[in-house]
Amino acid sequence: VALLFSSKGDDPALWEGLLRRHVADLDFRVWPDNVGDAADIEFALVWRPKLGALREFPNLKAIFSLGAGVDHIFRDPDLPPGVPIVRLIDAALTRGMSEYVLHWALHFHRNFHRYARQQREGIWKQLPLTPISETSVGVMGLGELGGDAAAALAGLGFRVAGWSRGPKKLEGVECFHGHHALEPFLGLSQILVCLLPLTPETEGILHAGTLARLPRGGYLINPARGALVAEEDLLAALDSGHIAGAVLDVFRAEPLAPGHPFWSRPGVTVTPHVASITDPRSAAREIAANMERIEKGEPPVGVADPETGY
Amino acid sequence: VALLFSSKGDDPALWEGLLRRHVADLDFRVWPDNVGDAADIEFALVWRPKLGALREFPNLKAIFSLGAGVDHIFRDPDLPPGVPIVRLIDAALTRGMSEYVLHWALHFHRNFHRYARQQREGIWKQLPLTPISETSVGVMGLGELGGDAAAALAGLGFRVAGWSRGPKKLEGVECFHGHHALEPFLGLSQILVCLLPLTPETEGILHAGTLARLPRGGYLINPARGALVAEEDLLAALDSGHIAGAVLDVFRAEPLAPGHPFWSRPGVTVTPHVASITDPRSAAREIAANMERIEKGEPPVGVADPETGY
Repeated sequence: VALLFSSKGDDPALWEGLLRRHVADLDFRVWPDNVGDAADIEFALVWRPKLGALREFPNLKAIFSLGAGVDHIFRDPDLPPGVPIVRLIDAALTRGMSEYVLHWALHFHRNFHRYARQQREGIWKQLPLTPISETSVGVMGLGELGGDAAAALAGLGFRVAGWSRGPKKLEGVECFHGHHALEPFLGLSQILVCLLPLTPETEGILHAGTLARLPRGGYLINPARGALVAEEDLLAALDSGHIAGAVLDVFRAEPLAPGHPFWSRPGVTVTPHVASITDPRSAAREIAANMERIEKGEPPVGVADPETGY
Repeated sequence: VALLFSSKGDDPALWEGLLRRHVADLDFRVWPDNVGDAADIEFALVWRPKLGALREFPNLKAIFSLGAGVDHIFRDPDLPPGVPIVRLIDAALTRGMSEYVLHWALHFHRNFHRYARQQREGIWKQLPLTPISETSVGVMGLGELGGDAAAALAGLGFRVAGWSRGPKKLEGVECFHGHHALEPFLGLSQILVCLLPLTPETEGILHAGTLARLPRGGYLINPARGALVAEEDLLAALDSGHIAGAVLDVFRAEPLAPGHPFWSRPGVTVTPHVASITDPRSAAREIAANMERIEKGEPPVGVADPETGY
């Protein structure tokens, strides 16, 4: 079975070795130098594939993403019609994201950003501590990643609200959905965690108007996609003090440009797109299992909806 | 029932109001100005009481600590004989400590200290991520606080080892005990969390010899008591790089003196004794419940052993 691998940042030899453990008759091809006969290719495993490249394979049965998001595939207006686009759903990936979210929510809840400033100034001063049950965290997006993060936050004792496009039910999470519920949801989010997929509907969803709905002195954690945030509006909200701190793992342009204000703006933490990193070992197992499902005529797990873009 | 309150840092009026909610006939006295007849006093609620002060009360039935530790009481060589010393056991206090430990363990596990340095230098670089199940955390002390922290760490997926004086069993935690097991335990502790009580036996337990047993490049989290650590030895281990980072909430002298090397040493995080803060609301409930137990002739919860000092 021929699979085409296409990613600038990932090592094809590593992926070939790992996939071969699970797929005995794997015919591993690498875009663009080792594609061979385009008609052979049944599967594509990609990160940010070249626009228009994928429709050149007439026998493609599925396009697998190397990460949880599929916006890097749907940005291509020339995708082969009818070929399923499949998100990577992997427990290790999900758990890694929840670790990131838990860490930064605890960080703000326990005032560690303020204690760091005090340390730099040599100040010994105990700050008031809000009980964790009175610190409310809002999670935007309640899919694979957001749902797990919301549950983990609630498990630690945070007051958790969640917002999603359609209705969801999650134990211990006050769930909101739809456009009209966005404002009350944001009003509850002292710490806002953005785990939305990037789609035409969500692009720039965190702008001056929505950020203004957060409680004054709130925090933003964005490990999803940079384009969900209007950067200038976030900088203005930080300047005014309406937002007291932001942890950003993703940016409109990556790597974040040298000299970009986020690097040095007080209250902003920059991490280099590491909130959740695909572990090729577990991911290869999940992708191989999806290949097997498709070969058997079963639907793969994690098919994205071209209508919603996720 | 007459209770004597003695603490420099806590507000007597706040505690009186909260205790009165649970103890109808409370006769609240405050040391040293409002003690009244010493023979009336049946209970003492204290933090770091004046040496020799407590034995002046002939009818004392119990001495309650305002915190989890009782070393600040046992340091008095003139305690009234036979009067139980009672630790504060409070779920909110325990949970607060586990939040602190989880945050800093995740911090080191996810390289957030390194990413902070990269941000200051404008460097965008993804660092290798060890799966959480391969990051081992060692918890010294498996009592009320250590036991809860170890379970919480294991719950997140860390590999957890625990060490205590006597044998313990904790699900998901590799338990070591006794002097001879200290060395193998330390060898497993990439991140060492110290939650021991301070006793004559544990004072200075983290010195050059024991710190050298940690894996090179390890981390120390100490939210227990400052005197458990030989400060000069820790500074030397940080200088040599044997210890890559330390988070210290407690110190031999508090507040930490201006100009103390911990304030500015790279790799050292100082927090001002806030890892776990007694919440007077829940603590007053626990203390009142212990007073009631004693009045009924039942043993209170959390009696410390004068032999071991905790």
